[in-house]
Amino acid sequence: MPSPELLARLAELSDLNHAGQILAWDQQVMMPPAGGAARGQALGTIESLAHDRLIAPQLGVLLDAEDFDDPVVRTVRRDHDVARRVPGELAAEMARAGSDGFEVWLRAREANDFKVFEPALRRNIELARRYADCFADVEHPYDALLDRFEPGTTAAQVAALFMRLRGGLVPLLAEIAQQPEPPPLSGNFPTSAQRDVGLQIVRAMGFDDDAWRLDDAVHPFAASPSPSDVRVTSRFEDGSLLGMFALMHEVGHGLYERNVDPALARTTLDTGVSLGVHESQSRLWENLVGRSEPFWTFWLAPLREQMPDTLGDVGLDAFLRAINVVRPTLIRVEADELTYCLHVILRFELELALIEGTLDPGDLPEAWAAKTQELLGIDVPDDLRGVLQDVHWSEGAIGYFPTYAIGNVLAAQLWRALRADLPGLDDELRAGRYGDLRDWLVEKIHRHGRRLPPPQLIEQAVGGPLDPTAMLEHLDAKYRALYGIG
Amino acid sequence: MPSPELLARLAELSDLNHAGQILAWDQQVMMPPAGGAARGQALGTIESLAHDRLIAPQLGVLLDAEDFDDPVVRTVRRDHDVARRVPGELAAEMARAGSDGFEVWLRAREANDFKVFEPALRRNIELARRYADCFADVEHPYDALLDRFEPGTTAAQVAALFMRLRGGLVPLLAEIAQQPEPPPLSGNFPTSAQRDVGLQIVRAMGFDDDAWRLDDAVHPFAASPSPSDVRVTSRFEDGSLLGMFALMHEVGHGLYERNVDPALARTTLDTGVSLGVHESQSRLWENLVGRSEPFWTFWLAPLREQMPDTLGDVGLDAFLRAINVVRPTLIRVEADELTYCLHVILRFELELALIEGTLDPGDLPEAWAAKTQELLGIDVPDDLRGVLQDVHWSEGAIGYFPTYAIGNVLAAQLWRALRADLPGLDDELRAGRYGDLRDWLVEKIHRHGRRLPPPQLIEQAVGGPLDPTAMLEHLDAKYRALYGIG
Repeated sequence: MPSPELLARLAELSDLNHAGQILAWDQQVMMPPAGGAARGQALGTIESLAHDRLIAPQLGVLLDAEDFDDPVVRTVRRDHDVARRVPGELAAEMARAGSDGFEVWLRAREANDFKVFEPALRRNIELARRYADCFADVEHPYDALLDRFEPGTTAAQVAALFMRLRGGLVPLLAEIAQQPEPPPLSGNFPTSAQRDVGLQIVRAMGFDDDAWRLDDAVHPFAASPSPSDVRVTSRFEDGSLLGMFALMHEVGHGLYERNVDPALARTTLDTGVSLGVHESQSRLWENLVGRSEPFWTFWLAPLREQMPDTLGDVGLDAFLRAINVVRPTLIRVEADELTYCLHVILRFELELALIEGTLDPGDLPEAWAAKTQELLGIDVPDDLRGVLQDVHWSEGAIGYFPTYAIGNVLAAQLWRALRADLPGLDDELRAGRYGDLRDWLVEKIHRHGRRLPPPQLIEQAVGGPLDPTAMLEHLDAKYRALYGIG
Repeated sequence: MPSPELLARLAELSDLNHAGQILAWDQQVMMPPAGGAARGQALGTIESLAHDRLIAPQLGVLLDAEDFDDPVVRTVRRDHDVARRVPGELAAEMARAGSDGFEVWLRAREANDFKVFEPALRRNIELARRYADCFADVEHPYDALLDRFEPGTTAAQVAALFMRLRGGLVPLLAEIAQQPEPPPLSGNFPTSAQRDVGLQIVRAMGFDDDAWRLDDAVHPFAASPSPSDVRVTSRFEDGSLLGMFALMHEVGHGLYERNVDPALARTTLDTGVSLGVHESQSRLWENLVGRSEPFWTFWLAPLREQMPDTLGDVGLDAFLRAINVVRPTLIRVEADELTYCLHVILRFELELALIEGTLDPGDLPEAWAAKTQELLGIDVPDDLRGVLQDVHWSEGAIGYFPTYAIGNVLAAQLWRALRADLPGLDDELRAGRYGDLRDWLVEKIHRHGRRLPPPQLIEQAVGGPLDPTAMLEHLDAKYRALYGIG
């Protein structure tokens, strides 16, 4: 048990993070537009106060006096050591460049012109390399960047993982592309009906009004200032059902935060351990539950009741085919379950080359187009639908993208493991019940918070390291069946 | 112009206040209930970090090197000196006692039993006296308590002011009480219609969606994390129109915050200067504008259109009489324009006696009943409708109540002064236009923020000190006319 002095410092740090989460959530969901400038400054101050506290030498002295085997001590020690490796000036410069870069990115998008964005990207790449230089002991500079989002995973591991994914996904996609496309659902999906059924679904998943909120946001996200206060956002559109899957995705994130062991409250360990593990939770609910036959065996009827004009004549099989269309497309966030990882691989390979210096930022649009052709077999018509589509690099988040694919891979591994433990799961899903599934995830993942390093958590949950086999086999079986490929 | 070093410290302090405002607003308006415990801790940490920064010796050193005639330097110097007079342990103990006291007060209200609350109140009184002891140079210990909310005003000044108010209000109320009560408005006031017309009204006052929000709250209030982000709350009920007046009241507060000189941004001076001056703005809009004939000459028609069943047959005179009923009642927050100050005087006289030690907290219910009889001529049936009705003392806010009456008094003085400057005002109000009125308030009050001490601001705005004459003459003329008293 850490000393009261250490716990008091961690509580203060947690409270600053809590304030930062609320300021950021409010900015996206509630704040009137004119409040933006002052909010940016306030958020910067809160983050900088938290950073100061994390790198405080007194924190190091307190940690030195503690039992290193205590998970709180070990985790905070690592946070402290990593943060101290980065000079304050560089950290501040990265924050400024990220904020500036975001504004430039918005302008470049308006102009649909990568050239506008290029200098800001160049600066972010340069700063990312200087950041990596602070960690001379890593095998590859990219490792230091990735570690910010996925502690314990290296560029070499990601490259190996992605090689396997490429090898499995590209030929499968080519086979599917030769099949006729299933008929799409036609008609309107009224947003009020989507919200209504969506809320029924997420309440069954574990959302409740005592500890959760649901609001609208342009880009759906989840936030949790504390495990007892979880906020998800959604965006429904009349033209498609995607908003319902996005809602399940965010509630998947939220369930992770909600179910961290209360004993970790205000230790800074009371949150998800990495972006990849977090994404495994959202993707599991969105795709492995939410795009499955057992799930819709229960939910299609209530949805059809609310949309009789659109779904009145649609049977379960046709519905499942329509919500599981596989098609190479240009935009990552609209990609299907199968092609999604190819978008991630594309970004990983490009940012790796940018960091290694083998690709100049000025040549990025051409490289983007070539990779899109190589991985997805389609042309990129302009920058907006190419290199300018994602916000991440503009804010300096280089090393972030692989976590999306790690999440997909881990979700399939968890799915395989939990199905072995829960033989009656499909029957539960067909009855609209998620208690056993949720309990399993809480037991294996959620309750641990940041207590275990991600590789150890994964090993413990699925009996081995990150491995794409389960995902490739799942996709192969699912889409061969749906598309009637032998 | 203060040095960059000083301004950087004030910006950090402002940002912490900004975060505190959002955390508190969110707690009352948005937060799911289970988030309360963690939110209380986060708010406590933010407030304590702000307090640490305000009392930092380095801030004193920086201030010493500055020009004392600069309004920012003078104001912050005063904040710093006052905060430094209070030992950290006492400040922390007061914060804890306030938080505990609030919980005990809630329990006492559930039991409708002052005895439950008595120990917490006794502790708060004791701590308030210890706080006052830190300011040995004040004439009366109450001065130190009042100064937290109304800098520059003393207990002696309040007592003199209230003596005049008592002398004018008690006999006027007695005269009115002998008149027949005007017929009340009967029927329903649909909340949607109140909200709709209420929004039209406050938009005409200056509310806009670029920099404002309106939400529901159990107890309406206004908050502004920055002058470009103003948040008001309302509570409408089918049974009465009071929510519309409460909305104008809160938007009156909001306009003050919204119109502080942008040059004061992030100096800690970019907010209202005192609670009394703040209340003068809300009361001016609520009562002097909102309960007047010229105002409703414009707005009765749109309101009637939305509530044809209730207001279809109600003429302007009958409507004005109904929204200006004067009647001695038990609950301060429901009191009318005339009796409101009597509720404040009651609380001031009691808390003064508690601080002086001439009244024991145990004897408070009897003293409350006696004062209610003396000032309002009515009996107090129980603690809920007596001594347990207000939250203030439970949180340790002793010295707060007088600011409500100061606000009423100052509102009438401002009203008199601005009517002299704006001879066409009634015609503007009858046309639903508030531009000249708002400009006058911005010029005389809002833009100054905390640049001038309240007594100097008041002197400059109305040409003299706080004086109840304008208010007493206003009430006398208005209610003699409405009640047909010679």
